[in-house]
Amino acid sequence: MTTEGGGPGSKAATHDHRARLRRAAERGRHAGYAAVVVSPSPDLFYLTGYDAPVLERLTALVLRDGKDPVLIVPELEAPRAAASGADSLTELVPWRDGDDPIETLRSILSEGRIAVTERMWASQLLSLQRALSSSTFEPASSVLADLRARKDPAEVQLLRKAARGADQSFSLITAEGFRGRMEGQVARSLAEHLQECGHDSVAFTSVGSGPNGASPHHLPEDRTIRAGDAVVMDFGGRVGGYCSDITRTVSVGEPRGEVAEVHAIVHEAQEAAFGAAGPGVPGEEVDRAARRVIEGAGYGHAFIHRTGHGIGLEEHEEPYLVEGNHRPLEPGNCFSIEPGIYLAGRFGVRIEDIVTLTEDGAVRLNHAPRERMVVG
Amino acid sequence: MTTEGGGPGSKAATHDHRARLRRAAERGRHAGYAAVVVSPSPDLFYLTGYDAPVLERLTALVLRDGKDPVLIVPELEAPRAAASGADSLTELVPWRDGDDPIETLRSILSEGRIAVTERMWASQLLSLQRALSSSTFEPASSVLADLRARKDPAEVQLLRKAARGADQSFSLITAEGFRGRMEGQVARSLAEHLQECGHDSVAFTSVGSGPNGASPHHLPEDRTIRAGDAVVMDFGGRVGGYCSDITRTVSVGEPRGEVAEVHAIVHEAQEAAFGAAGPGVPGEEVDRAARRVIEGAGYGHAFIHRTGHGIGLEEHEEPYLVEGNHRPLEPGNCFSIEPGIYLAGRFGVRIEDIVTLTEDGAVRLNHAPRERMVVG
Repeated sequence: MTTEGGGPGSKAATHDHRARLRRAAERGRHAGYAAVVVSPSPDLFYLTGYDAPVLERLTALVLRDGKDPVLIVPELEAPRAAASGADSLTELVPWRDGDDPIETLRSILSEGRIAVTERMWASQLLSLQRALSSSTFEPASSVLADLRARKDPAEVQLLRKAARGADQSFSLITAEGFRGRMEGQVARSLAEHLQECGHDSVAFTSVGSGPNGASPHHLPEDRTIRAGDAVVMDFGGRVGGYCSDITRTVSVGEPRGEVAEVHAIVHEAQEAAFGAAGPGVPGEEVDRAARRVIEGAGYGHAFIHRTGHGIGLEEHEEPYLVEGNHRPLEPGNCFSIEPGIYLAGRFGVRIEDIVTLTEDGAVRLNHAPRERMVVG
Repeated sequence: MTTEGGGPGSKAATHDHRARLRRAAERGRHAGYAAVVVSPSPDLFYLTGYDAPVLERLTALVLRDGKDPVLIVPELEAPRAAASGADSLTELVPWRDGDDPIETLRSILSEGRIAVTERMWASQLLSLQRALSSSTFEPASSVLADLRARKDPAEVQLLRKAARGADQSFSLITAEGFRGRMEGQVARSLAEHLQECGHDSVAFTSVGSGPNGASPHHLPEDRTIRAGDAVVMDFGGRVGGYCSDITRTVSVGEPRGEVAEVHAIVHEAQEAAFGAAGPGVPGEEVDRAARRVIEGAGYGHAFIHRTGHGIGLEEHEEPYLVEGNHRPLEPGNCFSIEPGIYLAGRFGVRIEDIVTLTEDGAVRLNHAPRERMVVG
């Protein structure tokens, strides 16, 4: 067996899944889809609260205009699906090993434009394409990603709680000494703090010291942290299914070289991006605001990633703050703002907060100090 | 950031990735594919040792006939890719946020038949299909699943080590009392034992007591285990990237009703399937051997899943022991044999071992007692 879930691995809070299913079906109809097919993923968890395992056995929620939602599940997963409450939201259609679930799926779909979960496995999509050869298939992002990107107050509250736990964890880690510890030790300590500070689970704790900080997603290893190092810490987990994600860069004693100068530039870029963010502003404009500061200081080549990503049930989701994203941000959007400068072989600096948009503008969910902090 | 990996979340042992890449490219050519495109997944880990995060940002290994392998990676993941050793096996082609990585991928592919990883995200496959509109796409299972299904001795050794740790964990848990404990407590204890017994990580610990045992993949909850209960325990984790997966059903004191009779039937079915397994035998024949015993005893309706699944870097992979799988099993195949009987509202019984095939026949990797055991 496997318990690897498509969702966040924790029970749903009391979200209104019936309303979400209705809105998704309506949006599917407006977009002209004959059906929306949702496989195990945060999409399925968002719509039904069922944290279905991601398996080679097909599980698929089918939304069609004017019809009740249907959830095709492997027979041996049916008790778990029912226990999640999905049986009161959908018609459960179990299939047994040896049957062909693609045929079951085909039999309830009509040919036309069909939207599928972005994370559906290619093998399942290819089978569906063969079974419905006159249909066209498109990613369901226009239906589901947009819906999920506009968080309701209960969702923002969970993201706020997660951000608060991340802030507290940063406070606890900076009260400890860094000098002489290994990156891996600091990472494990951070994971414990996240759990002490209300997280249901820990997703990642990246600790990159000295030259390792120049790899944005460095996996902690046996490097011993030394005086003069800049240490980039990027960590997060989940509270009620919703993610935290914060980055801070600290100096161990007085920093070497231009760490202080680079930190000030990244801080200014982060403030500039935050200042630019608001309802109606295209995602790329926020990216440009951060990039302008870093390019102006001569470090444009060293800012090697986008400025931010949406966050919710997934660590990365829409909206993305990246050149080419012309879509205006909307109230309810929640995303990271995380410019960085990476100098290969030397050090890196990144500062990341989660931000939510209200009708009136941007509000930070993280409040840990952004100024350069000197630790022991 | 995210560290969610497509692979097993642990470092590669010293496998010969260069030979694996060469064999995969050869098999791709023989199958007539213009290219094999591998996204973050156990496939990518198997071929390169790179446990790439599964992200919205495209990472793709491209294998083409007569050309060196190319690994397209997001620029900010490039240091991690290089640290895995993938830079010595492939040409790393980084792309930067704001660029179009599908265009990069398209530029190195020629139109034709293209094989893609089964787990590639639908959104990426749909983009590729748009970019290469004269090509046909197929699942890469004929190239990669077959290759991975024939384990070499080093892989079997890791599976053996994992199975031994699972056996030892079963021995430890049966030495503890069950009566009066909650399912969740037993599950947590099992997880600790797996780690004490050499596992790098725990993947799942399902504990279903009394009526909960009738749900094959029951998630442990706050049910208190009582005298007379049958308790189904299905648990596993990873050693060096390779999975363990074992199920045993114990009786807490003297069992109620027909538990003893049903246990004996499942035990006989498991022995029959093991006896049927061997090189050259179609997967479905092993399933039939188990099913014949259970049907003969009048419980056919209650054996609601296939008899087994392949195991390796994934908990479930080819070959599957299921009706409809006509393909002969081969030496090097490793799979579970796990018949079960599930009586809704009452109890369940399942017995599962991992088995490997040699030229001479089937060998069990699990040795924990299969006879019904009475625990305290």
